[in-house]
Amino acid sequence: MIKRRISRVVKIGDVLIGGGNPVVVQSMVKCPTEDIEEVLRQLKVAKELGAKVMRIAVPDKQAAEALKKIIPYSPLPLVADIHFDYKLALMAIEAKVSALRINPGNILDSNQENLTRYDKLEQVVKAAKNSNIPIRIGVNSGSLHPKYLEKYGYPTYEALVESAIEEVQILEKMGFYDIKISVKSSNVEDMISAYMLLASKVPYPLHLGVTESGSGISGYVKSSIGIGTLLYHGIGDTIRVSLTSSIEEEIKLGYEILKALGYEKRGVELISCPTCGRLEVNLFDLVDKVKKEIENVQENITVAVMGCVVNGPGEARKADIAVVGGKGKGIIYRKGKMVKVAQENQIIEAFKEVLNQVIEEKKQEEIKV
Amino acid sequence: MIKRRISRVVKIGDVLIGGGNPVVVQSMVKCPTEDIEEVLRQLKVAKELGAKVMRIAVPDKQAAEALKKIIPYSPLPLVADIHFDYKLALMAIEAKVSALRINPGNILDSNQENLTRYDKLEQVVKAAKNSNIPIRIGVNSGSLHPKYLEKYGYPTYEALVESAIEEVQILEKMGFYDIKISVKSSNVEDMISAYMLLASKVPYPLHLGVTESGSGISGYVKSSIGIGTLLYHGIGDTIRVSLTSSIEEEIKLGYEILKALGYEKRGVELISCPTCGRLEVNLFDLVDKVKKEIENVQENITVAVMGCVVNGPGEARKADIAVVGGKGKGIIYRKGKMVKVAQENQIIEAFKEVLNQVIEEKKQEEIKV
Repeated sequence: MIKRRISRVVKIGDVLIGGGNPVVVQSMVKCPTEDIEEVLRQLKVAKELGAKVMRIAVPDKQAAEALKKIIPYSPLPLVADIHFDYKLALMAIEAKVSALRINPGNILDSNQENLTRYDKLEQVVKAAKNSNIPIRIGVNSGSLHPKYLEKYGYPTYEALVESAIEEVQILEKMGFYDIKISVKSSNVEDMISAYMLLASKVPYPLHLGVTESGSGISGYVKSSIGIGTLLYHGIGDTIRVSLTSSIEEEIKLGYEILKALGYEKRGVELISCPTCGRLEVNLFDLVDKVKKEIENVQENITVAVMGCVVNGPGEARKADIAVVGGKGKGIIYRKGKMVKVAQENQIIEAFKEVLNQVIEEKKQEEIKV
Repeated sequence: MIKRRISRVVKIGDVLIGGGNPVVVQSMVKCPTEDIEEVLRQLKVAKELGAKVMRIAVPDKQAAEALKKIIPYSPLPLVADIHFDYKLALMAIEAKVSALRINPGNILDSNQENLTRYDKLEQVVKAAKNSNIPIRIGVNSGSLHPKYLEKYGYPTYEALVESAIEEVQILEKMGFYDIKISVKSSNVEDMISAYMLLASKVPYPLHLGVTESGSGISGYVKSSIGIGTLLYHGIGDTIRVSLTSSIEEEIKLGYEILKALGYEKRGVELISCPTCGRLEVNLFDLVDKVKKEIENVQENITVAVMGCVVNGPGEARKADIAVVGGKGKGIIYRKGKMVKVAQENQIIEAFKEVLNQVIEEKKQEEIKV
């Protein structure tokens, strides 16, 4: 069993993050914030798919104004994503956002107003404290504060961590501890190393993500390795998969990562063999049919579909239901016990029967609990 | 930079595995071994996609006979996958296979011949030594030797490692050290823990894989986390992604995992942002077009495609070429230096021009090296 790093807890709306609470899947609205109707549609979809928190960009005053109209109708707590302009953070707090994300790299001293970044942060921190909302310090390899780029020449993992910790210390000096941190990099190795180093240095909850991981297979792989490696080591309190793709795909992938490491049990886990020269049934077809039967099952059930007798009986022992292909027929196991033998064209019917029994049983168990 | 675990080296055909050599991507033939024409077609495809070694099932005498006809024409060295029957291993060696995989869990004592599994292994080891080929000890959660199942009640990661080490010791006692090991589990956490423990206990090269990882997103995620976490820690000398899917997909995913951690540089690495309310151009469309331009480029180039000015300039600094979207136009950077500004409908043309310059330059560099 994975031993989790136990951090302090922050609260975003009603959602607890850190302190050993379930890892929260989040995503980010992918349309202009002023397009209120589309924003609310995306938030609804996100909630249905299991996101517990959503982030939304506030790049200008129009967006900050739109927040006021969005928040009363939002089905999920919102985190306002602020860059460059601290005044937008103040506006977002006024609009009753549930949390802020600020990027220390790009809130800089300004000559016009004669304000240092310290002055600006102080105003934001005071407002956040009054409204009782947390701040995520969101350091990012693509927008590291210039002074660290100068010092390290490159956004190394040490640079990301040093920048985050400097910001934490500024907030702590202001008496603000309601902090969550991220140190994202588009380089997976740097990302993992940065979070590992950070986890050993601060007591705050961590928001994990590989930034700019792109689209397609490579985005899946980068996010899975980056977030997954940290979760294996018990590090991470909330995760956001960043893909050049839909929020649906981001949230779905987030849950797959959690499921792969046993952080989350939602629906059926399907184990199936890669097929080889030992194959004795049409496994691809069988797996497709089994998938169709299980896709809407909400109960936590393990199903194994195996093509031969080498690893089949072993996986069968571990699964709630297993279908093991033999020559022209299928054997159905239930918790390792053989319960049915069916001809190849009747395997799926036999599977459905056993599946329904198992679902009923799981439902009974839940009622008892 | 990842510090690799340096193991002993084994040689499969001409391919070196272990000792800090490049991590080898392998896959497994997915049709009956007797279907010689289809086997050879799959081997050809595998080689074209970059697999360096292929495994092939030898479940019966027909398959072992077919090996004799396959091996003289195989474009890649073959590993014969043997279960239950040690005689098939002897036949595969006679057919001049380049390596063996035996599963200690299912070569058992037999009453018929009055042979212990030790007697059987001895015959196989002698033949392997005479032919100068390595043996992979392939322990698998689905087919663990019954005595460990009895002891641990379940294929825990300690059980997998204990079974592997017992087998190693048997081979070592016979004076055989040409060993590669795998301890695959369908449970990602167990798989990672098993290899980590094993890596600390033996000097042999390790073959990584998550077994029975299924199909679709969940297969991608499990393999990426399992193999990726170990590679992040420098563990692993050859990898095999197991998907209920084509060998094409297995090999492609294998390379994506290696690329994500800098083990392999093949073609273009594309970094692109997840899009948000800050987006100022049609990024999905732009990324698709850029992908089309780069898909056949063999040179090792980093391309960033970013939708706005928050992380865009930072990623641009690190990339060989970056396209950063502004309001209705695109800025092209080359190694962080702005080189072109184009209207939105001309961005892709401007990108192609810069891409061709960079490819030419990389080619010149390669000639110099």
